[in-house]
Amino acid sequence: MFDDNDILMMQNALRLARQGRFSTSPNPRVGCVIARGSQIVGQGFHVRAGEPHAEVHALRQAGEAAEGATAYVTLEPCSHYGRTPPCAEALIKAKVGRVVAAMTDPNPLVAGKGLAMLHNAGIITQSGLLEDEARALNRGFLSRIERGRPYVRLKCAASLDGKTALSDGRSQWITAEAARQDVQILRAESCAVLTGIGTVLADNPRLNVRTLPTLRQPVRVVLDSRLQTPPDCHLVRDGGSPTVIATLVSDPDRLQPYLQHRHIRIIRPSENPAGRIDLADLLRLLAEAGLGEVMVEAGATLASAFLAADLADEIVLYQSPKILGNPGRPLFDLPEQPDALHTNARWHTAALETVGSDIKWTLRRA
Amino acid sequence: MFDDNDILMMQNALRLARQGRFSTSPNPRVGCVIARGSQIVGQGFHVRAGEPHAEVHALRQAGEAAEGATAYVTLEPCSHYGRTPPCAEALIKAKVGRVVAAMTDPNPLVAGKGLAMLHNAGIITQSGLLEDEARALNRGFLSRIERGRPYVRLKCAASLDGKTALSDGRSQWITAEAARQDVQILRAESCAVLTGIGTVLADNPRLNVRTLPTLRQPVRVVLDSRLQTPPDCHLVRDGGSPTVIATLVSDPDRLQPYLQHRHIRIIRPSENPAGRIDLADLLRLLAEAGLGEVMVEAGATLASAFLAADLADEIVLYQSPKILGNPGRPLFDLPEQPDALHTNARWHTAALETVGSDIKWTLRRA
Repeated sequence: MFDDNDILMMQNALRLARQGRFSTSPNPRVGCVIARGSQIVGQGFHVRAGEPHAEVHALRQAGEAAEGATAYVTLEPCSHYGRTPPCAEALIKAKVGRVVAAMTDPNPLVAGKGLAMLHNAGIITQSGLLEDEARALNRGFLSRIERGRPYVRLKCAASLDGKTALSDGRSQWITAEAARQDVQILRAESCAVLTGIGTVLADNPRLNVRTLPTLRQPVRVVLDSRLQTPPDCHLVRDGGSPTVIATLVSDPDRLQPYLQHRHIRIIRPSENPAGRIDLADLLRLLAEAGLGEVMVEAGATLASAFLAADLADEIVLYQSPKILGNPGRPLFDLPEQPDALHTNARWHTAALETVGSDIKWTLRRA
Repeated sequence: MFDDNDILMMQNALRLARQGRFSTSPNPRVGCVIARGSQIVGQGFHVRAGEPHAEVHALRQAGEAAEGATAYVTLEPCSHYGRTPPCAEALIKAKVGRVVAAMTDPNPLVAGKGLAMLHNAGIITQSGLLEDEARALNRGFLSRIERGRPYVRLKCAASLDGKTALSDGRSQWITAEAARQDVQILRAESCAVLTGIGTVLADNPRLNVRTLPTLRQPVRVVLDSRLQTPPDCHLVRDGGSPTVIATLVSDPDRLQPYLQHRHIRIIRPSENPAGRIDLADLLRLLAEAGLGEVMVEAGATLASAFLAADLADEIVLYQSPKILGNPGRPLFDLPEQPDALHTNARWHTAALETVGSDIKWTLRRA
């Protein structure tokens, strides 16, 4: 069904799609290559929401050469009028001969309709080429659409012996510069960076992308059930990143000091039996707000709450070759242990590499 | 001084030397290639103590072709009569034209005398080609000769969150089969495997090499200051591996049950102020006994004692993608923490890889 040239072209399309990894949110990353045999005549990727889709860029470049050519797209072309006209229509107008999609679009507004539109127009349509790679590119988008909650990545940093800080809380720096730089890349790729009020009070973090150029800042999300975010903290004072405060407080007088800032939005997830924010409901609200890829950069308590609720999809653990000893603070705060070791196979290693003097261990659900 | 062909030949010699990694102890691993230009005419490696050295195997194979050829050796040829006649003499007799050594032999019985003997016989001698690789091959031998103590490797296994066992001590298995198999290779490479009486009492381990063919078993060393090793444990009942019990006990009546076994030897290191075995003195005795590469496979207490005494040269940490939670037992038992994070740069990553479903992180002193 697919030959070597098809694979090569789709790899090109995937590479193009990746160029949008810092900017397409809430849209998926999509790349498109238009080729006549092994000759590429047009290529493009989606840059950011509201701007043209990948197919449009590629068709513009191809011009008349698109006629009879094959269009390789990493995601099924859209069939609906959103902020831009449907790409399926544009491909039909350009008279391409064949469209190969890496995967169909799970968005119920599309969901096969794009390919059907093309098919009905007499265009050869195929799907499923390098689908795993295409899905990996858009874990957040797919999770939001398919599961109604974001893809949740826990970012952790620990010493060789699993400690996150000295006993007095000093944690600057467990990991070295290169690892912190790497976290900036993960932040830039995320739709949102989520933290707890504990971290806000202790570190007054900015949670923005500072060391690499990006067209947008990830949304900052603070879990603050009792609304303790200091009005003079960076998250409130610095309006450069959209900021969501998730709280259980509903008193308008208490919300007002935050709502006067245009970059701040308040959401009210439901309360769990322990009187805290229900994380599953929080994630539902974040997905509704268009957030697909959420990185949790929090202390042991909140990170562990995601683990205990089985709501984490990925762990990125930066580990430094330091030994902190028993007084150090533990990586997680999990009072329960598994019943047995052999049944505890929830995670698998997705990637392992050194980053400067530290190691970076990426785990996903098994 | 060295051309590409020299490098290639020495790489061959190093590869040969590695073939002796499970068997040469207490001798170093040595490989030898005899070549005329790019043509190898003889090659060999040292297999085990008492048997011919690498040069002898290579010269036998080369026969008359050795005349005028270059001999590449990963360690300076010996100049003394040990269990075999000096290799320098054999090379002179064979009339080789040039000898290239990766490194001089730090053994005071040789220490440049081998190369000097060759030089005085009119043979071109050079040293230092791929010296780092050659030293890496014989960390244990070099440590024993140069520092008077073995190279100490701590083997540890922990979960993602730095725990070694469930709260009740269950640790079978933190890591999976592939990692345990890998430990067998490290054991086979070691001159000795060292553990504490705690591990003997809890696990009754065999501490031998079972799953790969090896010409010798590593020596087993038990730290047992108060002589509590059960007379019916595997280490005592199984005579297949030479076994050393290090104890502070000197009463002959108490030693007798152990000494009746021919595979058991008792050593008596000095006592430290805490009433325990002084680890530095223990290591001195082990080096005297010819042990160069010692792997510590012990619980948190003993492993941590080596760390606290700054007597560990390498840490091999197998980490599994499991999360055990707070009740789990910690990787180390180190009541002290460093004063600050930025000064705690004692270790660096030497290697990082996945082993089956686990990761293997090798660290050496920075």
